[in-house]
Amino acid sequence: MIRQCRTKIIFQSFSRQSPRYPSVAARHGTSYHQHENDLRHKERGDAVKQEMRSRGTGVEEARARIRGDEHTGPTGGLSRGYVQTNLVILPEEYAFDFLKFCIRNPKPCPILEVTDAGSPTPPVMAPDADLRTDVPKYRIYENGRIVEEPTDIKSYWRDDLVSFLIGCSFTFERALLDAGLYLAHLDQGRNVPMYVTNRECTPSGPFTGPMVVSMRPYRADEIPLAVAVSGRYPTMHGAPVHIGDPEALGIRDLAEPEFGDPISLDGDQTPVFWACGVTPQAVAMNARPPFMITHSPGHMFITDRLDAEYES
Amino acid sequence: MIRQCRTKIIFQSFSRQSPRYPSVAARHGTSYHQHENDLRHKERGDAVKQEMRSRGTGVEEARARIRGDEHTGPTGGLSRGYVQTNLVILPEEYAFDFLKFCIRNPKPCPILEVTDAGSPTPPVMAPDADLRTDVPKYRIYENGRIVEEPTDIKSYWRDDLVSFLIGCSFTFERALLDAGLYLAHLDQGRNVPMYVTNRECTPSGPFTGPMVVSMRPYRADEIPLAVAVSGRYPTMHGAPVHIGDPEALGIRDLAEPEFGDPISLDGDQTPVFWACGVTPQAVAMNARPPFMITHSPGHMFITDRLDAEYES
Repeated sequence: MIRQCRTKIIFQSFSRQSPRYPSVAARHGTSYHQHENDLRHKERGDAVKQEMRSRGTGVEEARARIRGDEHTGPTGGLSRGYVQTNLVILPEEYAFDFLKFCIRNPKPCPILEVTDAGSPTPPVMAPDADLRTDVPKYRIYENGRIVEEPTDIKSYWRDDLVSFLIGCSFTFERALLDAGLYLAHLDQGRNVPMYVTNRECTPSGPFTGPMVVSMRPYRADEIPLAVAVSGRYPTMHGAPVHIGDPEALGIRDLAEPEFGDPISLDGDQTPVFWACGVTPQAVAMNARPPFMITHSPGHMFITDRLDAEYES
Repeated sequence: MIRQCRTKIIFQSFSRQSPRYPSVAARHGTSYHQHENDLRHKERGDAVKQEMRSRGTGVEEARARIRGDEHTGPTGGLSRGYVQTNLVILPEEYAFDFLKFCIRNPKPCPILEVTDAGSPTPPVMAPDADLRTDVPKYRIYENGRIVEEPTDIKSYWRDDLVSFLIGCSFTFERALLDAGLYLAHLDQGRNVPMYVTNRECTPSGPFTGPMVVSMRPYRADEIPLAVAVSGRYPTMHGAPVHIGDPEALGIRDLAEPEFGDPISLDGDQTPVFWACGVTPQAVAMNARPPFMITHSPGHMFITDRLDAEYES
């Protein structure tokens, strides 16, 4: 998990966000890759020493732009190298059962941080952040139904709310790209397809339901590398849970994902399935708490922590 | 973390425990190594298919012997290949704050399982076990002080008790031995030395205090392998937190550990420090809850899960 032995590292700084930093990047594969190349190019001319742990100016600047509603789009591609997380906020009376659910189902629900009730500050992942403003878009739920999708939640905040930060696939997707693998959904300009499986999670109190998986197709000779690379991030969903045969997971038709977009597979590609961070959200919706807040899909919370700190 | 993609594995069965299975093994290095060789020898003649997940007969038999008070000694060396855990049991009113503490300090407090209040069953790690009887020796605390050390806790059980299973160093110690490395404390017939550091854990509610570390010395050319091998188990304390200079951790004298036994270092050995599972116990004692139960040091809970399931 966290390598606490490091006290200082040299890390390339972020290039500053370009004025029109593309929030669309996460949805347009080729431009995303192109953009990455641009970023790498800029970084070479812009390297500085950065004191560890950790708050690079890139992260603070990104969160400031989100806080000021300058950036209200998806966060894919922002703050390269820093952990982004799923967010679930629940009243305190549900907090222990929900946390217990996450501990019991660590592949879909890798829990990274829990706040004190009423505090909008995650002391480990981002002690200077404010979870009420620093996510580009939120979803407000009443009795399990979405009632609004605001860009901050100050007017909804209560002293009994507990926030949960949960690992996200962006970390291992970055690692897959760095290892020379592609992400078919990005190349096709789609969101990753996600499916409800026939695998029941281990329940906890009112929280119960099936595991949701995301799917990324690879050729037979690419799968071992995809497994090895994603497996280096056990607290970001880690290695796949299933390779091949969708029916064995209870998935009848790959063309009809329950979340995200369908994508096309080449004839020589096999579907590879990872446990998905939509699981805890889906389970929390099922439990129908009177009140709940989450991030809006793709609009994640950017933390101060490096992906590399969570690499095994 | 857990590779949920596996549905069945072939695994060598446990050899049956010998009538005088040495609970002393954990304290006598050379006999421990000798014993391991005996075990491997037996296993070769005793291989069977075993349905995954997971309950090998070796585990059930070991727990049955512990439950029946046939085995009341340390568990080091028992049920080779299966995860053993630390145990902390607290009243429900402390449970959320304690769990939050563990999430915030994952290196010393890698949380593997949390029970429902009043239930002695850990549904993920060992659904057929009973935490009231299946640990060889417990410690009962009142207001932070030990008042008894019984072999079962049936008479102490209450409907508001929540049990926490926390990763233990036995898993990575086994991997270090399998990688051809030694454990100096075993070779010297001692318990591993443990030290209170100057590194404060991130607090949660009443739970606050410094990180405790364990120390194992290695030569300069052995340290990289020791780091790599232990790092494969991020939920069992993982890679070291510190290599060399004890004073930088606030440790004044290696010869005076706060827990365990002092050991001797050769001139060419460097002390290597790992986050230690004594941390959550020490922190829980500091919080002085009116009532608490833990395992007795070295007398761990044996689970149904394989070490290999927690390998990254």
